[in-house]
Amino acid sequence: MNTRMGKQTVLFGKMPYMAAAAAIVGPYEGDGPLGNSFDKIIPNDDNGEKSWEKAETKLMKDTYQLLLQKGSTTENDIDYVIAGDLLNQNIASSYAFRGCEMSYLGIYGACSTFGESIGIASMIMAGDFAKQIICIASSHFCSAERQYRYPLEFAAQRTPTAQWTVTGCGGVLLQKEGTGPMVESFTAGRIIDQGLKDANNMGAAMAPAAADTIATHLMDTGRKPNDYDMIVTGDLGAVGTDICRDLLSQYGFDVYGIHNDCGLLMYDRNKQDAHAGGSGCGCSASVFSAYLYPKLQSRELTRILFVPTGALLSPTIIQQGESIACIAHAVGIAG
Amino acid sequence: MNTRMGKQTVLFGKMPYMAAAAAIVGPYEGDGPLGNSFDKIIPNDDNGEKSWEKAETKLMKDTYQLLLQKGSTTENDIDYVIAGDLLNQNIASSYAFRGCEMSYLGIYGACSTFGESIGIASMIMAGDFAKQIICIASSHFCSAERQYRYPLEFAAQRTPTAQWTVTGCGGVLLQKEGTGPMVESFTAGRIIDQGLKDANNMGAAMAPAAADTIATHLMDTGRKPNDYDMIVTGDLGAVGTDICRDLLSQYGFDVYGIHNDCGLLMYDRNKQDAHAGGSGCGCSASVFSAYLYPKLQSRELTRILFVPTGALLSPTIIQQGESIACIAHAVGIAG
Repeated sequence: MNTRMGKQTVLFGKMPYMAAAAAIVGPYEGDGPLGNSFDKIIPNDDNGEKSWEKAETKLMKDTYQLLLQKGSTTENDIDYVIAGDLLNQNIASSYAFRGCEMSYLGIYGACSTFGESIGIASMIMAGDFAKQIICIASSHFCSAERQYRYPLEFAAQRTPTAQWTVTGCGGVLLQKEGTGPMVESFTAGRIIDQGLKDANNMGAAMAPAAADTIATHLMDTGRKPNDYDMIVTGDLGAVGTDICRDLLSQYGFDVYGIHNDCGLLMYDRNKQDAHAGGSGCGCSASVFSAYLYPKLQSRELTRILFVPTGALLSPTIIQQGESIACIAHAVGIAG
Repeated sequence: MNTRMGKQTVLFGKMPYMAAAAAIVGPYEGDGPLGNSFDKIIPNDDNGEKSWEKAETKLMKDTYQLLLQKGSTTENDIDYVIAGDLLNQNIASSYAFRGCEMSYLGIYGACSTFGESIGIASMIMAGDFAKQIICIASSHFCSAERQYRYPLEFAAQRTPTAQWTVTGCGGVLLQKEGTGPMVESFTAGRIIDQGLKDANNMGAAMAPAAADTIATHLMDTGRKPNDYDMIVTGDLGAVGTDICRDLLSQYGFDVYGIHNDCGLLMYDRNKQDAHAGGSGCGCSASVFSAYLYPKLQSRELTRILFVPTGALLSPTIIQQGESIACIAHAVGIAG
């Protein structure tokens, strides 16, 4: 039976299966430590298209097709696709699924999008409304830089706390009946803003939201951090990771040794100039799909808490002097 | 029992109640034929704030507070808020709910957002994951003009097919146990693009998506148009309404006499210079909450199909020569 537990957590009576996962990334991500794990590395950031936006759209389209193939299913058998990205009006997602046969639900949670998607999809599936759902999210370094900061040609210098938006797309196929890792629980976050205004330090801004959601999840479920093999945040990067761990110890939860971060897993910070680490909707989505999913499948990881984190700012609202509103959603997954 | 019916429709075993609805609009909307129906009309478009974006954020915040009050409930008893707007990165929504206690799920469906929100919320509730959910959506003429077209100060001339983005916010409180109109069914649309590229004629672009979703709903459920007292689309306006009705008759469904459109209900086109009619997430949200909801409550309307429609374009993708991808979601509601 589906149940609500505590303040923000739901548990699934019949747990949705993650039947397949797929990830396609850019060349810079392919050069990183997870390079061998991705399904495909595109040779150029332009992905054979005439604009960065279209390059990202194609990334999502291709990841979706690969996901259907890996899950041995077809578009007609998918009940919903739940998708999002960072571009204004979510165009990578809406244009990737233009003309497709299945129902489309667009969501926006900034870099937390992939977690929100899996959470909503799991509730829909465990509520008996769907047999197969695709959850997918993308980002692209070049389209994000242009939209949020400066066009690449401007060659702006980056601060040490800045993160590198991942060029990549990751997706999972949820099935009601099947095999694979299972979605156990979902803790949907609330919007937290601790007053940080530096859009070049989003890890620090997102850390309190991540800590809030993780602490809430643990309190809601009565679990301890080491009930999980890994608690893995979305893209806090080096700065945010330290803050998040410290905040959690203030809540009384020691996550040192168990916590990891997709933004830190993506690049080799000694060899690659990615500053504080990776970010973007595509970061947690592709790291989960290529790196964490196989470990859950092989039961090298038996239970993880996957916590994509998002900074819900826009350039306009920052220019108007506002601080950065953030969110994190936690998904409990059993191998 | 929750069930899936046909290609894209779900029916709710235990139907969520719409326990309360609220709508706040701008002065131009207050001057229209529905002026007396809204809960509040703000005296100035700036809503006492220093930017249009903050004015819209406040509109949503105030509508949310009013909704809690009308529903005799408190923030701590709300399980989810599911919100969206038209601004880049959904900032009206994320900043309206910053610091709130309940879980937040941001969605993006352009002007179809309110329908998407009710659909997702109903599935979550009927799946036993929540007792109270708030569905809310807003738009603002001035923030939308600046972002999608030109700053107001530029005084660009509008084409006859252009629609007027509604300054307004509408929301409903869904309750698992309660009274009020009930959500019977949800038909989540697919993304349709018939190749139209004129961003000043979004009604025409959205009409095929509306017709597709309505026809799919009727075929999925085996119903006829006159099983509904009203089939009411989101914001097709004058141009899109005609096209949608014609397209539906090609599908074999005669909706003349039953079909209405929130974009046409909002303004007095003889007295107000709103061109083809209203648009924006706030259009269908505020017309539903202020005008349709009370008629369902009093059972003047016993069953309607509410079909918010959205154009998923961004200025960037249109500048890159793409056509307009559109979507419509249908919500069946019984009085």
